[in-house]
Amino acid sequence: MTKTILLKNRPKGRPTTSDFEFVTEDNDPKISDGELLLETTYVSVDPYLRGRMSDAKSYVPPFELNKPIQSGVIAKVVASKNSKFNEGDFVSGMLDWKTKQVSNGEGLLKVDGNKAPLSAYLGILGMTGMTAYLGLNEIGKPKAGETLVVSGAAGAVGSVVGQIGKILGLRVIGVAGTDEKIEMLKSKFGFDAGINYNTTKDIKGAIAEAAPNGVDIYFDNVGGPISDALLFNINKFARIVICGAISVYNETELPKSISVQPFLVKNSALMQGFIVSNYSDKFPEAMKHLSGWLSEEKLTYSETIVDGFDNIPNAFIDLFDGKNKGKMIVKI
Amino acid sequence: MTKTILLKNRPKGRPTTSDFEFVTEDNDPKISDGELLLETTYVSVDPYLRGRMSDAKSYVPPFELNKPIQSGVIAKVVASKNSKFNEGDFVSGMLDWKTKQVSNGEGLLKVDGNKAPLSAYLGILGMTGMTAYLGLNEIGKPKAGETLVVSGAAGAVGSVVGQIGKILGLRVIGVAGTDEKIEMLKSKFGFDAGINYNTTKDIKGAIAEAAPNGVDIYFDNVGGPISDALLFNINKFARIVICGAISVYNETELPKSISVQPFLVKNSALMQGFIVSNYSDKFPEAMKHLSGWLSEEKLTYSETIVDGFDNIPNAFIDLFDGKNKGKMIVKI
Repeated sequence: MTKTILLKNRPKGRPTTSDFEFVTEDNDPKISDGELLLETTYVSVDPYLRGRMSDAKSYVPPFELNKPIQSGVIAKVVASKNSKFNEGDFVSGMLDWKTKQVSNGEGLLKVDGNKAPLSAYLGILGMTGMTAYLGLNEIGKPKAGETLVVSGAAGAVGSVVGQIGKILGLRVIGVAGTDEKIEMLKSKFGFDAGINYNTTKDIKGAIAEAAPNGVDIYFDNVGGPISDALLFNINKFARIVICGAISVYNETELPKSISVQPFLVKNSALMQGFIVSNYSDKFPEAMKHLSGWLSEEKLTYSETIVDGFDNIPNAFIDLFDGKNKGKMIVKI
Repeated sequence: MTKTILLKNRPKGRPTTSDFEFVTEDNDPKISDGELLLETTYVSVDPYLRGRMSDAKSYVPPFELNKPIQSGVIAKVVASKNSKFNEGDFVSGMLDWKTKQVSNGEGLLKVDGNKAPLSAYLGILGMTGMTAYLGLNEIGKPKAGETLVVSGAAGAVGSVVGQIGKILGLRVIGVAGTDEKIEMLKSKFGFDAGINYNTTKDIKGAIAEAAPNGVDIYFDNVGGPISDALLFNINKFARIVICGAISVYNETELPKSISVQPFLVKNSALMQGFIVSNYSDKFPEAMKHLSGWLSEEKLTYSETIVDGFDNIPNAFIDLFDGKNKGKMIVKI
């Protein structure tokens, strides 16, 4: 039996379970020469998928209606007619939300469960870690002694960004939505300070207090009012990495905010959209540092693991309420 | 007799003549060893001066109340006790709004009225030309065949940016505020297309039509609704040079606009504040190209020359109504 999750409707605003449809087929898919049969082990759910559910021009084409949704997946090779993969191998890749599927092996990477837990290849040793490492380094261009602010700091990417910031000698301030998360940022991930945006009335003032020397790098996962407040605190030559804008993904009207242009010109500051796939030539460098720091225990990570294929849509929707700590993963 | 213009009040919103005070002294200033007596010939008035009239943190310190205002000035050396300058030399520099003043020569450049009209050293061969050349090249990073949109296109900087764009093989679209200016952009400066923002209802659509391949570089002198409309038309890896935001300089409330972050992340696009003084190491390179193109007649420029020291404040205020074509200069 094979279960598949299709995109049934393009969500209006916040996604709901009715935007997804489950389809069950009785027979297992068959493989031909050169193909593999994969059984899904872990599925990554990520805020950026919201963008692909809309029918708008973006850096990746939108998902098609009534077709399977795709995301980062770890799968086990259960049958192989492809010489590059053996039965029992685990692979990672952009795959369908399906319990079983056929692949020709293209775009799949073998992963080693002895070196790190398999789920880590969706997170700190996968796109999450690459995004954190490359976004911070390629756009943020950190220099020891500078001050870094990370929004969505308790999220999968944010928590890694902050830790890399500390490894590189920065003062690191995290913005997150609960006191528990702020506590975790400081005790588990080594952030220097944290701001709970839900209980802080004057976010602009709180950033100023936490960053007495001003902000040199802002790693922005959220957009919206937090990012507005940040602009008042940037230093000359500040770099703002726009990695995501979760606070506005579900807006049905075009979001408004204060004009960034006067802040950028006053401070000779830079703001740049970051998409990890543009930096694939640097993946080996990123992987080398991330796995090195992980084995030296300089880097740690959080996962929120949800059980069961049927819970994929709910796990995805829960991202928008910040129910995850670190990477949100569904175990099949 | 020496006249001086002081900043009397920090303007609230649009500057008015009552924000300025004229002071007259009967005696000419005296010079000591190492000093020069300068007689002002041309005074540059520029939108960025509005920023220095406010008491806000910026890339240059604010003007002090009851002190002379400064801007780019061409002056004649009428007496010299400094071996580097002779009576009769003309110099350019950041100088006071005064008919006569003393200088120790620091920061002054000799200019040659035989090579180009003296006023050109405030414009195309001065900060204006440097800003156009370096902003376009250092942040815009143009590649032949790309599409460039310039706002404030009939202004001093904008008209040079567009011409350099044409020299470098770009498709160039200018946005300006009258049909007469649009006509000038096309006939005098060689722009491929122009959009009159005062008579065009759908600016977003008009940009799309003028830029069928999308926009790769936006040289932004204005901010506000034009810049909002532009965001819908950017290509992947677009570069937005924030050179000025004249549309919001006089706002008394913090200006709002659509959130740029989702556009930047969708398109891996860059937006960066440009201030010419950060690139002083490249001035010789810029000067070489600008004077070369000028003598080859690949580059031309417009000036609006206003007569009389007493008209400096009005000439400055008129900038905000777009009364200038090209560089606004006051001849003393």
